[in-house]
Amino acid sequence: MPREDADELWRVGEALADAAAARCLPLFRNAALVCDNKAGPGSYDPVTEADREAERAMRAILATERPEDGIFGEEFGETAGRSGLTWVLDPIDGTRAFLAGAPSWGVLIGLDAGEGPVLGIIDQPYTGERFMGGLGRAVLRRGESERALAVRECRDLSEAVLLTTYPEVGSTVEQVGFEAVRDRVRLTRYGLDCYAYALVALGQVDLVIEAGLEPYDIQGPQAVIEAAGGIVTDWRGGPAHRGGRVIAAGDRRVHEAALEFLARVA
Amino acid sequence: MPREDADELWRVGEALADAAAARCLPLFRNAALVCDNKAGPGSYDPVTEADREAERAMRAILATERPEDGIFGEEFGETAGRSGLTWVLDPIDGTRAFLAGAPSWGVLIGLDAGEGPVLGIIDQPYTGERFMGGLGRAVLRRGESERALAVRECRDLSEAVLLTTYPEVGSTVEQVGFEAVRDRVRLTRYGLDCYAYALVALGQVDLVIEAGLEPYDIQGPQAVIEAAGGIVTDWRGGPAHRGGRVIAAGDRRVHEAALEFLARVA
Repeated sequence: MPREDADELWRVGEALADAAAARCLPLFRNAALVCDNKAGPGSYDPVTEADREAERAMRAILATERPEDGIFGEEFGETAGRSGLTWVLDPIDGTRAFLAGAPSWGVLIGLDAGEGPVLGIIDQPYTGERFMGGLGRAVLRRGESERALAVRECRDLSEAVLLTTYPEVGSTVEQVGFEAVRDRVRLTRYGLDCYAYALVALGQVDLVIEAGLEPYDIQGPQAVIEAAGGIVTDWRGGPAHRGGRVIAAGDRRVHEAALEFLARVA
Repeated sequence: MPREDADELWRVGEALADAAAARCLPLFRNAALVCDNKAGPGSYDPVTEADREAERAMRAILATERPEDGIFGEEFGETAGRSGLTWVLDPIDGTRAFLAGAPSWGVLIGLDAGEGPVLGIIDQPYTGERFMGGLGRAVLRRGESERALAVRECRDLSEAVLLTTYPEVGSTVEQVGFEAVRDRVRLTRYGLDCYAYALVALGQVDLVIEAGLEPYDIQGPQAVIEAAGGIVTDWRGGPAHRGGRVIAAGDRRVHEAALEFLARVA
């Protein structure tokens, strides 16, 4: 892709992140925030006006700036495009964290060229961190400072730090697969939502293993981690960008070692 | 306590937090950080030069400014005093989070007047948040902005958001006790270390339940939550400031409801 095209896509990507942040941040830790339950009685799948307003704001920018591109967003679904590029948007990944006041939620933006994301953003407006990867970038920007994103080496599972959001991970068999890896790593931490992927790209941790993801949960993080030198696949080593069961690793050796256990899951 | 004495204690408390932050922050997400294992082979209890340097810096201030007061710190133990006041210090609560790059760790400072903390600080240097409670204060300060800390109402466990750090909580019986509460709340989140207590004081969540705490893990958070109108006890409703099994709640109704399950634990 020519440099000017990449610059233009980054300009739009950052404009989306700015617009989403401007809608989400005033509602974070705001007692006036209204929360609905998408799942209905007996279950809990919260969605807030912050999610909806942030996706609306991003869609309005794309309608003006990139009318040929498709959109796939968590709250308002798919809008077909003609350019072969699709913006994959999760206005607030980690709505539960958002509601709890914990800054592990993020605005996720991916740009899918058909076979996976070529550009991704994990934006955390409260801490002011923007993790960006793809099309020539692999950086964490915070205020005036920028830091290169680069995964770290990890030779063996026994040295690895593993992150996931929920201890139950997903179905019973998925939990069993996760726990086979968990029982072999040095340290496991929970509850970090999309921030977990940012920490792989930052070279602070080695593995993220999750299940039940949607494309908009993973495309932004996938581009960031790949740009930082890491690997993101499904639990059999295939493409991850359609969601489902996902493993992200900084080092191919621990990715391969973890797949030995995960690939057995039916 | 006279106003000028309270002001003086707050001045010292904040000086301790500043000194600890100045030692911890440069080592956060720093590849040069050296980590030792306090537990020895087969277990993992990490301690870093950041923990030790931060506690040394706080002790140096107290030696000059408050030579009559006692000190009880995680890394260097107890130093007897003569004033009846003891500074209870955890230079980095959440060393695992610190190592993983997640900003849920904090510097914890409590001032124990013999029967519990009268002043507490939960300081998160990376996000720039300082949660302070006791002796006339109940505030979150961040940069130039201050916000009052106040717990929220929660009538029933079924509406409560519950936080803890580890899914296993502690011993098997402690885990069973925790899970009896967990199974009755609306939402449970893991992995937040001391930040969980800050979110109770902020009125974002309703309950924190943990076990196996040391006095320096709870005295700072306890003072912050009590100043914000909440309640912190052990699992039988007794004093929490010596650590062990701890429950923190914003609303006495959910505290009481949770104790019904926790108090049965042998």
